Amino acid sequence: MIVYGKNVVKDIDVNKIRKVYIMEHFHDNEIIKYLQENNVRYIIQKKQVLDHMVKGNHQGIVIEINDFLYSTLDEIKDEDFIVALDHLEDVHNFGAIIRSCEAAGIRSILIPKNRSVQVNDVVMKISCGALDRVKIIQVPNLVDAIKKLQKENYFVYASFMNGEDYRKIDFSGKKILVIGNEGKGISKIVESVADFRIGIPMTGKVNSLNASVAAGILIFAMK
Amino acid sequence: MIVYGKNVVKDIDVNKIRKVYIMEHFHDNEIIKYLQENNVRYIIQKKQVLDHMVKGNHQGIVIEINDFLYSTLDEIKDEDFIVALDHLEDVHNFGAIIRSCEAAGIRSILIPKNRSVQVNDVVMKISCGALDRVKIIQVPNLVDAIKKLQKENYFVYASFMNGEDYRKIDFSGKKILVIGNEGKGISKIVESVADFRIGIPMTGKVNSLNASVAAGILIFAMK
Repeated sequence: MIVYGKNVVKDIDVNKIRKVYIMEHFHDNEIIKYLQENNVRYIIQKKQVLDHMVKGNHQGIVIEINDFLYSTLDEIKDEDFIVALDHLEDVHNFGAIIRSCEAAGIRSILIPKNRSVQVNDVVMKISCGALDRVKIIQVPNLVDAIKKLQKENYFVYASFMNGEDYRKIDFSGKKILVIGNEGKGISKIVESVADFRIGIPMTGKVNSLNASVAAGILIFAMK
Repeated sequence: MIVYGKNVVKDIDVNKIRKVYIMEHFHDNEIIKYLQENNVRYIIQKKQVLDHMVKGNHQGIVIEINDFLYSTLDEIKDEDFIVALDHLEDVHNFGAIIRSCEAAGIRSILIPKNRSVQVNDVVMKISCGALDRVKIIQVPNLVDAIKKLQKENYFVYASFMNGEDYRKIDFSGKKILVIGNEGKGISKIVESVADFRIGIPMTGKVNSLNASVAAGILIFAMK
């Protein structure tokens, strides 16, 4: 995977760096020093080569890192609380939800393989290191994965705008919280397998919370 | 203020539109019909003119709208709960917090005039119409504004990573919740005037929630 930018290089675990490309006449001695101190080798290239490698403003530095490793369903072990994202789209929401999960002690997030946000450089940046402690479990089919977990006694709460007031519910036991797509919400097929519909009562007129905010409120209430 | 894009034109209250510029050979008849049905006049321009007006991908449509009107401190009337943003920076966070406030029935958000995110086209888009129901009160000095409100019996809760567990606090009475900057948190000077430090207990190692997620959790707990 390719990432870039001066701040990014310092945020990344050096063990994950495969190669660093520095632009000719790169002037940031602090970064050069950082790379040397951490024994990261770098290759000097013409600006045009770097421009060709990435679309965004690379600030003279492009980093090749090990591809993100997704986990599989059988890696879930003795976990009380799992979050599932039903075709989330936005990288900011995904990154913020990963942070919320890490802060709440949740270790596994389920995402479907297709038509869903995936881990990329932006998500890595937004999640602020939380990805090192939270497994992203990529499944071919979210409904099949949920059904399998239900057989292992997970109770599935799906988040709906008009769901039951989350403050009135006892969340004890093994559980999965499903958060829907930003525009469409929870899909019909996921709704059909969920055990319970929960919601956050709102008093406004617009009545739609940002997906990562709704997820955060529910995660901290349910943990 | 200039905004742009096909989805944006339909989201905006038509009364706020001053002018619409459409690119030559614009093919989206549905939008043309929408403008005509709502009696919005549009001007056809060369692509280069539109390219010159905005930096982003305008999709052939640029809209000039009335500038956003900030409110002033004396417009706060009989409100129980106000949110103050201590030099927030990110437009996504600002937009999400405006949505959370609207959904929780909060009608006023305080922001400082300088070194703070302001209302722009991205914030308008992200806040999904919530700006029509939430006043953004722009103040020259946040500390002075807080002190003035304290004289009117507002109790000021400032959000800190290591603040007192929000679940243990009785939030009755008139109150202000202060959310800090994404990187630096609450400033020393705001901390010095706050009445109480509150926080969200976390069990992870990274232990930093996205600012809009933290704000959402506290807003819905305090309302």
